Amino acid sequence: MRESSLNAPFEPVDQPADGPRLNRRQAAKVRTRQKVLDAARDLFSERGYDPATIRDIAKGAGMSTGAVFANFQDKAELFEAVLAENMERLTEVVRASAASSGPVKERLTTALDAGYHHTMGHLPLMQAIVARSWFQPQQAEQRARGFTKGLLSVIGEVLRDGVRSGELKQDVDTRLVGDMVWDSWLTNYRGAAYDGWDEKALSERLSRQLDVILAGAAAKG
Amino acid sequence: MRESSLNAPFEPVDQPADGPRLNRRQAAKVRTRQKVLDAARDLFSERGYDPATIRDIAKGAGMSTGAVFANFQDKAELFEAVLAENMERLTEVVRASAASSGPVKERLTTALDAGYHHTMGHLPLMQAIVARSWFQPQQAEQRARGFTKGLLSVIGEVLRDGVRSGELKQDVDTRLVGDMVWDSWLTNYRGAAYDGWDEKALSERLSRQLDVILAGAAAKG
Repeated sequence: MRESSLNAPFEPVDQPADGPRLNRRQAAKVRTRQKVLDAARDLFSERGYDPATIRDIAKGAGMSTGAVFANFQDKAELFEAVLAENMERLTEVVRASAASSGPVKERLTTALDAGYHHTMGHLPLMQAIVARSWFQPQQAEQRARGFTKGLLSVIGEVLRDGVRSGELKQDVDTRLVGDMVWDSWLTNYRGAAYDGWDEKALSERLSRQLDVILAGAAAKG
Repeated sequence: MRESSLNAPFEPVDQPADGPRLNRRQAAKVRTRQKVLDAARDLFSERGYDPATIRDIAKGAGMSTGAVFANFQDKAELFEAVLAENMERLTEVVRASAASSGPVKERLTTALDAGYHHTMGHLPLMQAIVARSWFQPQQAEQRARGFTKGLLSVIGEVLRDGVRSGELKQDVDTRLVGDMVWDSWLTNYRGAAYDGWDEKALSERLSRQLDVILAGAAAKG
């Protein structure tokens, strides 16, 4: 019975197009898991990591804590699932906004501003993501790098286009410069968290950081 | 009885030169507090924040947990005291190494490499400092900014010297560029934490970041 998924504009979450068909019981399990994930995302987005308890996540999903633990080993695993989902959507948003041609700075600001726009509604989640990235087991770090790989490659593509078009110097280390762009983008969330920066302030700050970073990478006209 | 502190090369911690004289009981209290602080610093330096328990800190100081709580309200307050002390020493180290004249990049790398050298022995403490900076109450954030103010002002002085000497452009935003230098320095600790970067690797990375940042700020020769 794949009809609904063939006709629907988006694949329903319990019936992935490229996965095996699920029987009723398996489909119910996937739905339950997604319900927990949705409740966890809501709570992490509102409170961050530490103050979000499994108890409240279960409550948000309308389940027992036992049902949560039947799906996720612990809060760390639940957070990682939310992180993976979050980074996937963010990467899509940023990639779509970077797709146009044009000068490097314009493409980067358009793409990364879209990233701010997409994430500012869940600032505590973003803070928790960065905070946890500073103290996690090596394996979790390696998985987390997998989740940000797509975003870094979007930035890298724009920079490499800039090198190809002659806008940037031929010997620019696009990997290093890409990391610096990404770190600047991310660091600015501290201004949102503690100084009340809104999207406009974040965007202005990023624009000035990009001016500094790209000025050193620009081919002399 | 200030004789010992007058003769000693350093002021003993229980008798600050600019504070009031302490009677025997007060001095014992200050010593106890310092003992707790030393044990806490050791444990945070070894494990970071979450895995360092008050119980183990008390054990390290040879005291009861009650004695710890008589001096510090909670682990967060204890961590802040360690942070304040750590940043004060780090600022001294960096300031002393930046004191010489010379080109901006040379002064910054010398100063900030000294910072890496001073801190690499307690990497988990540095990780915990950054992680916590992403999720703390507004008042704790404001106090933490007070602790890093000295370090940022050292970087700012070097940059402003560069503007005065004509090495950097007259209209460089030294505040923004200083923040970017500081953020680059700090972000590199993730490489130390997860990629095994040693002092040399940190220093090389910082050097390349400074090349990008300062290239945009340099006056055209």
